[in-house]
Amino acid sequence: GRIVRSPHGATLHCRNWLIEAAWRMIQNNLDPEVAEHPEHLVVYGGMGRAARDWACFDRILATLRELGEDETLLVQSGKPVGVFRTHVDAPRVLIANSNLVPKWATWEHFNELDRKGLMMFGQMTAGSWIYIGSQGIVQGTYETFTACADRHFGGHAARRWILTGGLGGMGGAQPLAATMAGFSMMAVECDETRIDLRLKTHYLDRKAASLDEALALLNAARAEGRTLSVGLVGNAADVFEEIARRGVKPDVVTDQTSAHDPIHGYLPQGWTLQQWRERQRSDPQSIIEPAKRSMANQVRAMLALQRAGAAVFDYGNNIRQMAHDAGVIDAFSFPGFVPAYIRPLFCRGYGPFRWVALSGEPKDIHRSDAKVKELIPDDRHLHNWLDLARHRITFQGLPARICWLGPKDRYRVGLAFNEMVRHGELHAPIVIGRDHLDTGSVASPNRETEAMRDGSDAVSDWPLLNALLNTASGATWVSFHHGGGVGMGYSQHAGQVIVCDGTDGAARRIARVLFNDPASGVMRHADAGYEEALATAREIGLRLPMHDA
Amino acid sequence: GRIVRSPHGATLHCRNWLIEAAWRMIQNNLDPEVAEHPEHLVVYGGMGRAARDWACFDRILATLRELGEDETLLVQSGKPVGVFRTHVDAPRVLIANSNLVPKWATWEHFNELDRKGLMMFGQMTAGSWIYIGSQGIVQGTYETFTACADRHFGGHAARRWILTGGLGGMGGAQPLAATMAGFSMMAVECDETRIDLRLKTHYLDRKAASLDEALALLNAARAEGRTLSVGLVGNAADVFEEIARRGVKPDVVTDQTSAHDPIHGYLPQGWTLQQWRERQRSDPQSIIEPAKRSMANQVRAMLALQRAGAAVFDYGNNIRQMAHDAGVIDAFSFPGFVPAYIRPLFCRGYGPFRWVALSGEPKDIHRSDAKVKELIPDDRHLHNWLDLARHRITFQGLPARICWLGPKDRYRVGLAFNEMVRHGELHAPIVIGRDHLDTGSVASPNRETEAMRDGSDAVSDWPLLNALLNTASGATWVSFHHGGGVGMGYSQHAGQVIVCDGTDGAARRIARVLFNDPASGVMRHADAGYEEALATAREIGLRLPMHDA
Ligand SMILES: NC(=O)c1ccc[n+]([C@@H]2O[C@H](COP(=O)([O-])OP(=O)(O)OC[C@H]3O[C@@H](n4cnc5c(N)ncnc54)[C@H](O)[C@@H]3O)[C@@H](O)[C@H]2O)c1
Ligand SMILES: NC(=O)c1ccc[n+]([C@@H]2O[C@H](COP(=O)([O-])OP(=O)(O)OC[C@H]3O[C@@H](n4cnc5c(N)ncnc54)[C@H](O)[C@@H]3O)[C@@H](O)[C@H]2O)c1
Repeated sequence: GRIVRSPHGATLHCRNWLIEAAWRMIQNNLDPEVAEHPEHLVVYGGMGRAARDWACFDRILATLRELGEDETLLVQSGKPVGVFRTHVDAPRVLIANSNLVPKWATWEHFNELDRKGLMMFGQMTAGSWIYIGSQGIVQGTYETFTACADRHFGGHAARRWILTGGLGGMGGAQPLAATMAGFSMMAVECDETRIDLRLKTHYLDRKAASLDEALALLNAARAEGRTLSVGLVGNAADVFEEIARRGVKPDVVTDQTSAHDPIHGYLPQGWTLQQWRERQRSDPQSIIEPAKRSMANQVRAMLALQRAGAAVFDYGNNIRQMAHDAGVIDAFSFPGFVPAYIRPLFCRGYGPFRWVALSGEPKDIHRSDAKVKELIPDDRHLHNWLDLARHRITFQGLPARICWLGPKDRYRVGLAFNEMVRHGELHAPIVIGRDHLDTGSVASPNRETEAMRDGSDAVSDWPLLNALLNTASGATWVSFHHGGGVGMGYSQHAGQVIVCDGTDGAARRIARVLFNDPASGVMRHADAGYEEALATAREIGLRLPMHDA
Repeated sequence: GRIVRSPHGATLHCRNWLIEAAWRMIQNNLDPEVAEHPEHLVVYGGMGRAARDWACFDRILATLRELGEDETLLVQSGKPVGVFRTHVDAPRVLIANSNLVPKWATWEHFNELDRKGLMMFGQMTAGSWIYIGSQGIVQGTYETFTACADRHFGGHAARRWILTGGLGGMGGAQPLAATMAGFSMMAVECDETRIDLRLKTHYLDRKAASLDEALALLNAARAEGRTLSVGLVGNAADVFEEIARRGVKPDVVTDQTSAHDPIHGYLPQGWTLQQWRERQRSDPQSIIEPAKRSMANQVRAMLALQRAGAAVFDYGNNIRQMAHDAGVIDAFSFPGFVPAYIRPLFCRGYGPFRWVALSGEPKDIHRSDAKVKELIPDDRHLHNWLDLARHRITFQGLPARICWLGPKDRYRVGLAFNEMVRHGELHAPIVIGRDHLDTGSVASPNRETEAMRDGSDAVSDWPLLNALLNTASGATWVSFHHGGGVGMGYSQHAGQVIVCDGTDGAARRIARVLFNDPASGVMRHADAGYEEALATAREIGLRLPMHDA
């Protein structure tokens, strides 16, 4: 196996730091600490790749090393296809991944093109060279739980607890994110090895073998005002039902079992893990019905807990749909996490803001963390996150940080980083990017744009305008993808990355891009009729022609 | 009814000519001479609109009048949604029309959103403000016939003749385009009023009541070395069959009846027009079978003429599919017009290049025509077209011209126009744009990208890269649409318009945009494995990383 890692340090290999950043970041995406299957160029998310194949990868690197300061490289589904003269304020790389004319936008046709070597799946940050490992999922979950505390508990999570299921790949971030956000948590997981893994990495505090034990641990912690996360070995459907039956009242209820996959994702009640795995081999179709029946029981318990006063939400695993299929008519009585907690943030232009130290120096991130706190002195959740992240997040590949910021802060932070680079306070330039899951950058009717107020869930003019605007504003690279997160046919989304190299030119571009990018999300939500977005637009001075008239 | 017309003359209403151009061109699109149904904001192509509604139209105009020289207006499906600070080399307007997440990309969902006021259909040049009336269809047909002459007759159309059917809205351009390209033509049309209309506008030379008469007229003209177009009143299926039976040999055979619509588009054999129209009201479904049977007869005759040596092609009316449905197994033995004649042009980066005189002065177009001939002295077809267009094309709205140019010429012509504006040789700036049907700007597997050599028909990364590249290169406005030409779900495509205002800045942008835009089409076709495109890439110095290695 070939091993790829981004070079560290302040030595330039390309014509300037904008180009060097792209050159390092594609390599960083394939760092064995960062990527899931670097040997297949797979970064994360099933088959999300950084380049179409090794030949393309090598040519991308070679082309970037020769690229002129006023030239732009075009990348089509992971293949470098052209170099064009543009200008210094234009992006250095333009990327389009996995886009298909709608009628042909299926996994079947995609796979056929993929086999022929004509396509690759870009996911969101895999094919756009700004993945930073698992910090993203921890922070996203933290943000959701924080928003939940704001909405339901006046921002006070203390002594409150969350009931959830599943400690798998993404769900395993829940206990860490919960305690970071000030909650305690009980996470029901049927596979004890998963609990042990989370204990080992300190994402989870304790393990319990029975509901009584778990509740006792939680009650003790809450009595002392401590946060505590407990992994309970068991079937989520059984435990959720028992909690409802006993009249125990969690403050928040959600679930991250893999309910979206009724064969491999959800253990039916009454089955052992071994029975389940054997049946997955011998007769997989026979699992669906009992799994859905159990999901229905779990959702009924969630509805009961909702009626008893808990804040209940679906965490994007489709468990409501499964329960509905199995006869739970009111399964959709609790909301998905985006309409419930993320959309209000999107309305205000908040979303994921991540940065990477091209130097490879952890100190550069620590100094930039401090700068963010200095610039945004009043945001308790943000400070909390940055402090805890410093102690509990292990860097993967080039040191990086993520936090959610809005349109008033993103460009201020970007300009401040640029100044730090200019004055030598950091060892090398900083790269700022984001997930494609952001306020103005995605149309995905089953997730990010579910249940928009005006019914515009499927309108993808918005992410297209976002990509064009970021290109016009001078982002360092811009990407447009199809199918990330929810698969072929279900989403279209845009990404941008911008480099702080300490120059005046960078400062001008940063001021434009890091305002316009989130502000375009405020525009999108204002257009859909969200009052909060209209208020934010006024506050930040965003010009909306149909509203300014 | 409100009447909209673009102001003429050299007086500026906006901050500069880039913005003024957008402001005039959206109005020109709705000029009663240009638009099909200006009262509904419909420009052409069924329901292709220039703005979502009158309120949006008015706000677009008002916003453009106030727009700063470093600002960019965002338009979402005909609605002005935001104004952002960018920079002087960025587009002044960014447009996204009718884009839907693939799973929802149907007429049904579109219509629902349209009814709710959330969308509009942009077609290609309607929602991107660069429609110029029927000159485009004449010229496109001329280009196809010219390519046909080049391919089959060494460029010599003299004494050759084309057999076709249909003289309707678009098909009516055939006789004019044919004689312009040096061919004679027999066009079979069942509705005599259509023939009379084409005679009146001088698009057609003569009318004949029988095949014998038509052949006699054609033979006489050919004997004298004249071109002649004859409209023959009759049913195309009957006449095509009779011609094949008699052993008469047309040089080229095609058809532009509306075969795509088997109820309203194609008169069944043996029926009168009146019977047909009555049946369309009383029992429309009953027309389908006899219409398809007649189409099958026409296609069988076309196949026979092909075997007898004629160049036969489908002109995008789906008649092959209809005949195939009705049992003609080898219906697809003759090609569609894009793979046959247009694709070779696309491979060389050729495509539609149109310009408009913002002054409103016909003289500005005549002077620019002369400049094009001066710059490209050796292109006989081009000169022929420009000479004939001058005499036979009536301007609609602002005077405009269209001709097909490649990557070596587009920027040279653009720069020359810019110089003419600078030196006052033209009364006001010139706008250069194009259709979305161009070499690098469209993915449309049933038409423009049908049967690509590598099977990449449905890959829409290419038009997306084109839109991003034009934005990065500094086009004055850039658009990205879905569904133009072939309807919802079937196409994605990009447009660009650039203004020659006589400044140095414009010259720099023109040099980039008018090379990069067509060169990206050469790149797309080179990537698909077309030798001609690879050769063109070498010739124009286009850098293709996977080929330069
Ligand atoms: N942004 C989002 O919308 C978002 C974010 C995170 C996760 N998710 C969704 O959450 C789900 C979990 O993701 P993951 O990557 O952690 O999946 P995973 O498959 O790695 O983990 C699922 C876990 O659930 C456990 N489990 C299965 N059935 C159970 C049962 N009946 N009781 C208790 N535990 C059970 C499994 O043992 C496993 O550890 C997926 O459906 C994913 O799509 C969505
Ligand atoms: N770019 C392209 O692919 C392209 C370009 C031009 C036209 N087209 C296609 O060509 C077709 C014609 O377009 P249009 O706008 O001219 O349509 P139209 O409906 O205005 O005209 C069709 C004409 O065919 C005549 N006709 C019908 N049945 C006949 C028969 N059996 N014999 C003789 N005449 C008959 C009608 O009387 C009518 O005048 C359409 O299918 C259109 O989609 C495609």
